[in-house]
Amino acid sequence: MNEIMESLYQRKSMRAYEDREIPEEMKKLILKAASQAPTAGCQQLYTILDITDQKLKEALSESCDHQPFIAKAPMVLVFCADCKKWYDAYLEAGCEPRKPGVGDLMLAVTDTVIAAQNAVVAAESFGLGSCYIGDIMENCEEQRRLLCLPDYVFPAAMLVLGWPTEQQKQRPKPERCEQKHIVHENTYRDMDGEELREMFAYKCKNRTYEEWCNAFCNRKYNSDFSKEMSRSVEKYLEQFGL
Amino acid sequence: MNEIMESLYQRKSMRAYEDREIPEEMKKLILKAASQAPTAGCQQLYTILDITDQKLKEALSESCDHQPFIAKAPMVLVFCADCKKWYDAYLEAGCEPRKPGVGDLMLAVTDTVIAAQNAVVAAESFGLGSCYIGDIMENCEEQRRLLCLPDYVFPAAMLVLGWPTEQQKQRPKPERCEQKHIVHENTYRDMDGEELREMFAYKCKNRTYEEWCNAFCNRKYNSDFSKEMSRSVEKYLEQFGL
Repeated sequence: MNEIMESLYQRKSMRAYEDREIPEEMKKLILKAASQAPTAGCQQLYTILDITDQKLKEALSESCDHQPFIAKAPMVLVFCADCKKWYDAYLEAGCEPRKPGVGDLMLAVTDTVIAAQNAVVAAESFGLGSCYIGDIMENCEEQRRLLCLPDYVFPAAMLVLGWPTEQQKQRPKPERCEQKHIVHENTYRDMDGEELREMFAYKCKNRTYEEWCNAFCNRKYNSDFSKEMSRSVEKYLEQFGL
Repeated sequence: MNEIMESLYQRKSMRAYEDREIPEEMKKLILKAASQAPTAGCQQLYTILDITDQKLKEALSESCDHQPFIAKAPMVLVFCADCKKWYDAYLEAGCEPRKPGVGDLMLAVTDTVIAAQNAVVAAESFGLGSCYIGDIMENCEEQRRLLCLPDYVFPAAMLVLGWPTEQQKQRPKPERCEQKHIVHENTYRDMDGEELREMFAYKCKNRTYEEWCNAFCNRKYNSDFSKEMSRSVEKYLEQFGL
């Protein structure tokens, strides 16, 4: 196993950081690793917001489901899928571009997240911990106001980084499913009840499948923040003609 | 600069491969690196299709904008954002899950692409070349038929991998924008005409901004495949209540 594979396998989310800055040069290298990621037609369909203002970090820690650790992180990045800058560039050149559509958004989201994951891998190589915050897609009105997001710019991923505490480093990495359930050969295979139970058995621990699954469904999937995410994403999609 | 950073900086897309298999064990390690990627609530909101059937590779090379190199690749992966397996798992447990919404889709797409990018980084560490194929989001009717995709499963990313030819290895990596245009501090900054021209100056080479930008707009943004992508993604979004 090479060093890169070891790093990918070992990386886990870290949510508590030491009170210690990240050197500017290291920040720059991480951001450059993001920009060096694969990108559709070399278009870099994203804009990265580097949140340095403490008041803004605090506001985001509230608007992203009240997670105080965000405000304590030395590095907070918001990766925006940006369908505006190219549209504006076309207008500036006197082109007649069509309005951005949901295909443009989806391509930009993939571009953006590819870049974000490169930042994660880069940070890990320096011993930094990182954590994605999916909640950046919620509360569109508040996030757009805080980050001054215009139409055609969608906050696809948020990343919080810092030097992990010893406790975080010691925490075991959560287990993944067996690969046979994740990787299907050639075509998509509908999983029947038996396979679904087998796939998630490791999550149930000392509860029945029904107990664990109902608790998880209520806590995650049927939760208010989960419904809020769909409401909020619908609002963004309206900008793209839906 | 450490080995991981070097690898992230040097990685470029490779579209021509030697006629040489990828060992099974190496494939497994790459797929495992994908599964070890960060994932929202440890849900692994994706299913990876490992395309081993030569006829299916050929069909995909046609349905993905007629790119014959896809059929020649020893490893072809389709990363699907999967909002179906959890929904089914909830039903199996007797829960009353709401229907998947666009927020669930978007969270799953980010999860999926994070996993795909880990596969890219893993492959690169073995000396394999890789290329994303955005066209997998187009022609939804055909791709769904070929891959047997049910509702709530969206092909977010396709990855083609193989041992790069010498010519591909020698090809220079396409340049990226200057970082100051990509990274904005704190809030999103609308770029004016002057900045847009400055940002893309390196792309114009011996043409005016207007010449280069109009040509690019016609070839990419206003192209039929680009419009097709939005039509197709709209169809997928209908499954999620839009």
